Amino acid sequence: MRNMNEKQQLANNHISVDCVVIGFDGERLKVLLIKRAGEENGEIFHDMKLPGSLIYMDEDLDEAAKRVLFELTGLKNVHLTQFKAFGSKDRTKDPKDVHWLERAMSMKVERIVTVAYLSLVKIDRALNRGLEEYQAEWVALPDVKALAFDHNLIIREAMAFIRQYVDANPAALFDLLPRKFTALQLRRLYELVYGNPIDVRNFHKKIALMGYVMPLDEREQGVAHRAARYYRFDKKIYNKLRR
Amino acid sequence: MRNMNEKQQLANNHISVDCVVIGFDGERLKVLLIKRAGEENGEIFHDMKLPGSLIYMDEDLDEAAKRVLFELTGLKNVHLTQFKAFGSKDRTKDPKDVHWLERAMSMKVERIVTVAYLSLVKIDRALNRGLEEYQAEWVALPDVKALAFDHNLIIREAMAFIRQYVDANPAALFDLLPRKFTALQLRRLYELVYGNPIDVRNFHKKIALMGYVMPLDEREQGVAHRAARYYRFDKKIYNKLRR
Repeated sequence: MRNMNEKQQLANNHISVDCVVIGFDGERLKVLLIKRAGEENGEIFHDMKLPGSLIYMDEDLDEAAKRVLFELTGLKNVHLTQFKAFGSKDRTKDPKDVHWLERAMSMKVERIVTVAYLSLVKIDRALNRGLEEYQAEWVALPDVKALAFDHNLIIREAMAFIRQYVDANPAALFDLLPRKFTALQLRRLYELVYGNPIDVRNFHKKIALMGYVMPLDEREQGVAHRAARYYRFDKKIYNKLRR
Repeated sequence: MRNMNEKQQLANNHISVDCVVIGFDGERLKVLLIKRAGEENGEIFHDMKLPGSLIYMDEDLDEAAKRVLFELTGLKNVHLTQFKAFGSKDRTKDPKDVHWLERAMSMKVERIVTVAYLSLVKIDRALNRGLEEYQAEWVALPDVKALAFDHNLIIREAMAFIRQYVDANPAALFDLLPRKFTALQLRRLYELVYGNPIDVRNFHKKIALMGYVMPLDEREQGVAHRAARYYRFDKKIYNKLRR
């Protein structure tokens, strides 16, 4: 719990926030995790968890999520959306998790409801600066192993939420893409979010119909294959079309 | 807190659930509230609140929501969807609310995060049976006065959630309508959910385009005006069209 200001008073030991930060590297969806080391039955273990923490007395849930993400990963100015509260009585059934948290927080841990937040971000150099120092790491979704608490479940539910959210707000997908992207990248992203392969030709028709995805006069450079055209997302046109 | 089994152990005094149950009487959207009486500064007060309660040790959030709704209103077999957690530090700033809850629960109350659930139901005779006995009442949304805690905010956010939800799942609207409904009722419902008047003629075109709203060979009976045709929602066709 790096940077945890021990003078801050916790609101209680029952309410936490956790942040699911999702990025796309052009090939795969990744989630930002932090490394955890603990000791259980005299054995040291290493695993990972979502950036999260109990909340302080003087902060609202949204504030706590922002604070936690910054403290644990250095990320700031990131848009966080609350998507679900997780409060199963089984969340804290693994003694490993309970003991780790009790040591980290120096307090007794019982039932904890966590309020989960989601952020879709562009994985770029600025964002990655200093992640190592924070013991934070981007992990591709298929490579995520057993995480602390119910964090695997929280990530699964985040993905289900993203699908619904993108249905209602297609613009959200472009938060994951670089400013200039290829049709292949956009198609790959759709495939990953919806979990289905998409036919290439149908997808080019789909792009043409999107109206707010604008072809640029610019192509990829220094690639072995035929250089693909770049596109960009036009937020103004999107807003006009959606009104 | 009628029917509250005092032998049940509360998980803690920090986590509650609240249920926003919305119905449509053909004219107006209504929310199911329960009456509250308390004493503050030696004065008796009467107001209303959402059906809600702290959670028990042995129950998950979804279970708590179901239990609370049944205990406080008699409703069961109602589909509840979690839509947002409310955890502002200002939620419990009104001493009236804190004192009332402390008396009701016989415990000290501090910061409480509440997980809010939403249900869209048909207001029919079966549903209304026994509501009075429970001190529960349907209140039209424009008539809702200042409620306990942040319950006015929770209802506002529920309405915003409904709009988004109906955009993604148009079928949800039909949960609010009787099995047979008129075009006027459906239009009125759209107007209330989206907060905009809808042109009658455009709306009839819209219904024709819906595919899953089927005209019946049946009309209203015993009305002073020209008897309107009934329609019904066809879930099978809806599912086929949406696939």
